[in-house]
Amino acid sequence: MDSSTILQLPQLFSILPKPQRVSRAYPFKPWKKRTSQPTRFQCQKMYVPGFGEASPEAKASNNLHNFFTYIAVSIVTAQLQSYNPEAYEELMEFLGRHSLNDGDKFCADLMRESSRHKTLALRILEVRSAYCKNDFEWDNLKRLSFKMVDESNTRLMRDYVLETSHEEREK
Amino acid sequence: MDSSTILQLPQLFSILPKPQRVSRAYPFKPWKKRTSQPTRFQCQKMYVPGFGEASPEAKASNNLHNFFTYIAVSIVTAQLQSYNPEAYEELMEFLGRHSLNDGDKFCADLMRESSRHKTLALRILEVRSAYCKNDFEWDNLKRLSFKMVDESNTRLMRDYVLETSHEEREK
Repeated sequence: MDSSTILQLPQLFSILPKPQRVSRAYPFKPWKKRTSQPTRFQCQKMYVPGFGEASPEAKASNNLHNFFTYIAVSIVTAQLQSYNPEAYEELMEFLGRHSLNDGDKFCADLMRESSRHKTLALRILEVRSAYCKNDFEWDNLKRLSFKMVDESNTRLMRDYVLETSHEEREK
Repeated sequence: MDSSTILQLPQLFSILPKPQRVSRAYPFKPWKKRTSQPTRFQCQKMYVPGFGEASPEAKASNNLHNFFTYIAVSIVTAQLQSYNPEAYEELMEFLGRHSLNDGDKFCADLMRESSRHKTLALRILEVRSAYCKNDFEWDNLKRLSFKMVDESNTRLMRDYVLETSHEEREK
């Protein structure tokens, strides 16, 4: 079976909104003598508009949640293929009919398909929890993201300079 | 201007592939006396098929990279709106014509639009680096993801039990 299940995460970002101004005109108050560690104020951070009550971290974790479901389905599929071809075929058939865009909806639908599918669904739930908590390398994610933003910024600026200096030389 | 810039991240997941079997039939070798901490073997983790040379962490960080570009554009837009309406209008007009799906391509195009747009692009690059490294709460992301997987699994199982017990009562 051709398992052409392409994932897209359509609900990660909402509409880019018009930002609201944040008033910072509070009067200066001298500090009282600190008795504990200084509190870090949220307002020291850049103002990110458009997330309402949710935070960027919550949006990103929601996205990762669907990613972990996708990974768990991949893991379970690979395991089944080697020792339970019947269940493997059933799961692949179900995957052909249902989108993995919304991981939770996929699992809810899988549970209700049949009692055999329910067993598979429970296993997927278990695997995605174990993957998220034990196998996924969170420190590596952070490290790779730092590296990617540095490398991308350098590459973009270098490409631009190369391109424009090339144009100037042609003049 | 109606800023209906909806982000989708189409390249996060590739096609769910047919997994390959991993051979683990290597002969047993007795351990030599350890002189340092025991190494943690990658094969203790669950086998995740379909990522080739890239890792799930690399895919996720690529996704977050585009998310950070989106956030940086939001931050810069909000800042411009309050003190530079002209640049704000220019950026919004550019946003209406260009997709933010691929953050790096967006920045590359913005750089090449005009010299004023280039200044905005450089600022977006700077902001996304600062946001990624200083403002984004990585520990919070991990905490929220753990919480989300637990809560989702509980909810899915509870809903299923409630639904099926309800059906049985009706019989």
